Amino acid sequence: MLDLKKLLDQYSPSDEENKKLKLVASNIIKSLNDECSKLKIDAEAVEVGSVSKDTNLKCSDIDIFILFNKKYDKEFMENTGLKLGHKILQDGIEKYAEHPYVSGHIDNIKVDIVPAYKMNPGERIESTVDRTPLHTKFVNENSNENIRNDIRKLKIFMKQVNVYGSEISKSGFSGYLCEIMVINLGSFINVLKKFAENKGRFLIPDDKSLEKKFPEPVIIIDPVDTTRNAAAAVSLENLARMEIASKLYLETPENLPLGSLNNNNIKDRGTYMKIFTMERPDVIDDIIYPQAVRFKNKLFGIFDKYGYRPVSSEILVNNKIEILIEYEREKPPDMLIHSGPPADSNEVIKFIKIWMNNDRLLRGPYINGNRLYVDIKNENTDFSKIFETELKKIDIGRHLNPLKNKIHVIDVDKNTQYDVLKKFYKKNIFFD
Amino acid sequence: MLDLKKLLDQYSPSDEENKKLKLVASNIIKSLNDECSKLKIDAEAVEVGSVSKDTNLKCSDIDIFILFNKKYDKEFMENTGLKLGHKILQDGIEKYAEHPYVSGHIDNIKVDIVPAYKMNPGERIESTVDRTPLHTKFVNENSNENIRNDIRKLKIFMKQVNVYGSEISKSGFSGYLCEIMVINLGSFINVLKKFAENKGRFLIPDDKSLEKKFPEPVIIIDPVDTTRNAAAAVSLENLARMEIASKLYLETPENLPLGSLNNNNIKDRGTYMKIFTMERPDVIDDIIYPQAVRFKNKLFGIFDKYGYRPVSSEILVNNKIEILIEYEREKPPDMLIHSGPPADSNEVIKFIKIWMNNDRLLRGPYINGNRLYVDIKNENTDFSKIFETELKKIDIGRHLNPLKNKIHVIDVDKNTQYDVLKKFYKKNIFFD
Repeated sequence: MLDLKKLLDQYSPSDEENKKLKLVASNIIKSLNDECSKLKIDAEAVEVGSVSKDTNLKCSDIDIFILFNKKYDKEFMENTGLKLGHKILQDGIEKYAEHPYVSGHIDNIKVDIVPAYKMNPGERIESTVDRTPLHTKFVNENSNENIRNDIRKLKIFMKQVNVYGSEISKSGFSGYLCEIMVINLGSFINVLKKFAENKGRFLIPDDKSLEKKFPEPVIIIDPVDTTRNAAAAVSLENLARMEIASKLYLETPENLPLGSLNNNNIKDRGTYMKIFTMERPDVIDDIIYPQAVRFKNKLFGIFDKYGYRPVSSEILVNNKIEILIEYEREKPPDMLIHSGPPADSNEVIKFIKIWMNNDRLLRGPYINGNRLYVDIKNENTDFSKIFETELKKIDIGRHLNPLKNKIHVIDVDKNTQYDVLKKFYKKNIFFD
Repeated sequence: MLDLKKLLDQYSPSDEENKKLKLVASNIIKSLNDECSKLKIDAEAVEVGSVSKDTNLKCSDIDIFILFNKKYDKEFMENTGLKLGHKILQDGIEKYAEHPYVSGHIDNIKVDIVPAYKMNPGERIESTVDRTPLHTKFVNENSNENIRNDIRKLKIFMKQVNVYGSEISKSGFSGYLCEIMVINLGSFINVLKKFAENKGRFLIPDDKSLEKKFPEPVIIIDPVDTTRNAAAAVSLENLARMEIASKLYLETPENLPLGSLNNNNIKDRGTYMKIFTMERPDVIDDIIYPQAVRFKNKLFGIFDKYGYRPVSSEILVNNKIEILIEYEREKPPDMLIHSGPPADSNEVIKFIKIWMNNDRLLRGPYINGNRLYVDIKNENTDFSKIFETELKKIDIGRHLNPLKNKIHVIDVDKNTQYDVLKKFYKKNIFFD
């Protein structure tokens, strides 16, 4: 049951919160600008992000950009920006997106101070960060109270159905995408209608020729840079989720069966599972997550290659990395059908000679279609050995490779307690 | 080990046999022609087939065609032809290819007497039988003793590697194909070289544009009708067999490892097998075999559909029909991953409603790619029930359908003795 009115009350910031955010932000901007004039630096602090656009949900951060004149080189811009950030944020620590920036707190509000170059619309962008102030400007110029209210609704809706957030592990819709969708289509309900009725790729504007320019499942042109797909990071799964959620919501307004969909109990599936755990290196999610996914896919491939008949997998990345593989066969088959060269290849005689008197040969060589085959004894039926051999061969990324010899393998039974196992059983349309 | 010289001695007819064949054939032709003049019928008996072309192997049949003037209608031609046939062949029985014909024996030699129309080269063919006398004429006009000797060699070679015979259950090379290949390429060895060096489809003449006109893997243009692929019935497998056999033979002349390839013993494959047997209806192979193959494929499909993971199959059609299915799982999996509609389909809500509160639901509905899935309990794990249900639904051909309720299902264990099982284990490049 999704009661959007109630959720809007619950998630929207109070007037008091907004007043406080504005005060803190304007104080920071004033301090930064004062500091810049004092140091005779041609730079200007501006507020960006949802607070500056009045589309923020409760407990939002404050994002301040220091926009440097393009005459400064990158090193100067970054170093000076960081110094200024530290001056404002007593507990500030340096983080890194495309530029380095300083992240800290003022009055319990999280504040990021980010150095960037000052851009005008249409100028060539040096870094995606430089585009952010233009986004703020566009949203402010194209929204009114109704639009802002509907942007908040869409953000809340997307949070509920688990498609909100542009981090790689989520691959969902960013706040900015919510803003331009509502501005473009006019209302929250229109956005939902477009998702509910969508067929194939999702296009804003609705122009089929965009499909030739961009490969992604969701294409939403950035109004401040029409050569850019602002939705390039949105996954096919999250498009599917929004299509289904919108259909369900529009069919029975205010009712999304989020609750009952979560009620799957752990039932006997008659399958086998192994969980692979390793420590999580001290690197941000956006870097570790793709490596962990690659490892999961390689593991699935190993189970497949050796005939364990894998059917599902799950991954969890928090303070540990946990990967689950579900498979149908306790042991690989005793016999493998080994495919040889086609009959018109020059490798035919070699293949026949190799297998004809081989101890592993169970049947053949024989012909199927235009190709030679042999049925052979499977010699790889011990998982520990298989895993040891295959693990050496695979590349699982810069940060995970050094941890290869510290992977624990757990055979799941009914007493096994792992978060990835809970996640596996809870998987549904809106929880993945 | 293939000693072609020895085989040529063994399989070629003696002078005595040839003399006797010629005498019997000319007697039949004389009697038939005498009978035609007596009855004032404009028809002429001619000898066709390998004996008439001097390309026959030992113990060949005699084929006599009675060629009627095209002024006669089909019914008259057939009825008169059959009457004449019965007059010559005391033990004659009627058979049916494209026309009916009479098959019997004279002096222990099998004789077929076939009514047909008299054609001139280039005339529109009414029935493929009518073309046969033109084939005989072509081969006689284009061969000498060397060519005829090499045609016999090629026939023997093809018999040894099990690709000789145009019946549907074999789908191999006909005697006529052997004749035109040797005539076209000049010698037995040239034919083998062409197969050994062939890449992709096999073409005579070597004209790539033929690939657009004919869909078959082997294209050999009939010299008496250049719009026709004389090799349309040859299977991809038999092309592959000839390519491999030719490579092996040319690498080590006179040595084909036919023996040792047959030495596979029955070894434990760690799989499961069922054999399905039924009586063989009293209909010719060319009609029953395709129906039996269709039944085999349907059975394989049932095993696949229900998750038994079938891996191989074998078929035997003689006085019984025996079909073997080999599969990896003793029982189907307890869990099925059931694929639902894509997220942009109108069936989404229906699918969610069906499965959300279903007792069989183990997990989901969830999204993978752009599609909904559920993990559900598999309720079909009893093979007898599955077989009973599915058998009702499938069409296995006009002659096998009435026998559906007389199919025996045997679980293979180490004591099981069935010919199809022997055939299964003996399968190799040249035995299938």
